[in-house]
Amino acid sequence: MRIGQGFDAHRFASRDAGKPLWLACLRWDGDGIEGDSDGDVAAHALIDALLSAARLGDIGTLFGVGSQSDGAGKHGAEMLRTTVDYLNEHGMRPSSASVVVIANRPKIGKRREEAERALSEAVGCDVSLTATTTDGMGFTGSGEGIAAIANALVEPVEPVRQEA
Amino acid sequence: MRIGQGFDAHRFASRDAGKPLWLACLRWDGDGIEGDSDGDVAAHALIDALLSAARLGDIGTLFGVGSQSDGAGKHGAEMLRTTVDYLNEHGMRPSSASVVVIANRPKIGKRREEAERALSEAVGCDVSLTATTTDGMGFTGSGEGIAAIANALVEPVEPVRQEA
Amino acid sequence: MRIGQGFDAHRFASRDAGKPLWLACLRWDGDGIEGDSDGDVAAHALIDALLSAARLGDIGTLFGVGSQSDGAGKHGAEMLRTTVDYLNEHGMRPSSASVVVIANRPKIGKRREEAERALSEAVGCDVSLTATTTDGMGFTGSGEGIAAIANALVEPVEPVRQEA
Repeated sequence: MRIGQGFDAHRFASRDAGKPLWLACLRWDGDGIEGDSDGDVAAHALIDALLSAARLGDIGTLFGVGSQSDGAGKHGAEMLRTTVDYLNEHGMRPSSASVVVIANRPKIGKRREEAERALSEAVGCDVSLTATTTDGMGFTGSGEGIAAIANALVEPVEPVRQEA
Repeated sequence: MRIGQGFDAHRFASRDAGKPLWLACLRWDGDGIEGDSDGDVAAHALIDALLSAARLGDIGTLFGVGSQSDGAGKHGAEMLRTTVDYLNEHGMRPSSASVVVIANRPKIGKRREEAERALSEAVGCDVSLTATTTDGMGFTGSGEGIAAIANALVEPVEPVRQEA
Repeated sequence: MRIGQGFDAHRFASRDAGKPLWLACLRWDGDGIEGDSDGDVAAHALIDALLSAARLGDIGTLFGVGSQSDGAGKHGAEMLRTTVDYLNEHGMRPSSASVVVIANRPKIGKRREEAERALSEAVGCDVSLTATTTDGMGFTGSGEGIAAIANALVEPVEPVRQEA
């Protein structure tokens, strides 16, 4: 059993940018995130937690960085599935993962279970989502951006045992 | 074995508010935290770590939010015990947990072991507490507020085996 | 199997201070960190994660605080080895650990594997390193400082079994 830690933070885009908001593999109302990916901090933090648990690099080494990267234009769910495939190729699989979203918005409450199902389906094990604010403090409290902290456990894929 | 992640942050109340400071199930000298609960960020981050490890929601779904919530006026130790009871009802129990407090005050040093005993007694397994500052940076460094990051492992409650 | 959480943050020193930059047991180009230690936030966060997993205090209780502390002038690798020795003396050893560095600089990319080897050698188990920024937000985004979040698993040292 191996442990990984992940973190990600993104800045909210201006209204003019017209970007949709993606978080935890779901689309939400409100303005989205700056940058080349869909800005799903929950998915990105989980990817780093999974890759670091497997000691297989990080989101930058797997998907590249910038507008020409493999992650550009891809949604969190697709990137998570690619990550899990990559772990499997190296003989490992996720066994449990969890992510905290720190932000004023979106309000996760009513869609928390829907988001957990989407994350768990993408990762192939139970993934939990919690959410909190910072009482108006710091860059998440001012509404400037959104952050996520994730952790994960991975384990070796059991070899298929052949009967004699 | 399942893993959970928790985070919480609260703003210090003004001196005029006359609120006591609660942290890690202990009362400390100095002004307390704004809000309806006792503002114990260590306990609250641990509650989210435990609930997410069990995939049983978060502190908001278990206790509600605001002045009418079940958490309003309750101390961290009582909320932790309620959380562990809830896990038990769902066939799980905490096996290990840890929390970092990030703040200028209170100074944990001399009462760290006392705080760990209080947390561990409330959770029913070893809970560790560490503390650090941010060298005057950010909302914890300015003394505006206090934050905590927690993680936890939970495991299934073993069924009682009956002798034949 | 026990879990620990660690966090550390340090302020970058002014150019005038002429301090070298140490991170994840390696020396990097650019100005270093204020303070009495070498300012290696990755190593320090890992030390707190390891000590809290073992419920053996924190970096302050093991090394002391300030210019007269045992940590003053010591590099992260040496402090990590001392930490692991201390765990061993108490019947525990690290089994897996991971750390995220949150900063504008140094750019970890090309030296990530070198840093992971240095960390893993110091800790005696696989240690993963990931790195991210905060899109210009907060004290890491402004370039004021650097932060790290770590987690770790520790396990009992197996007693040597004697053949009958």
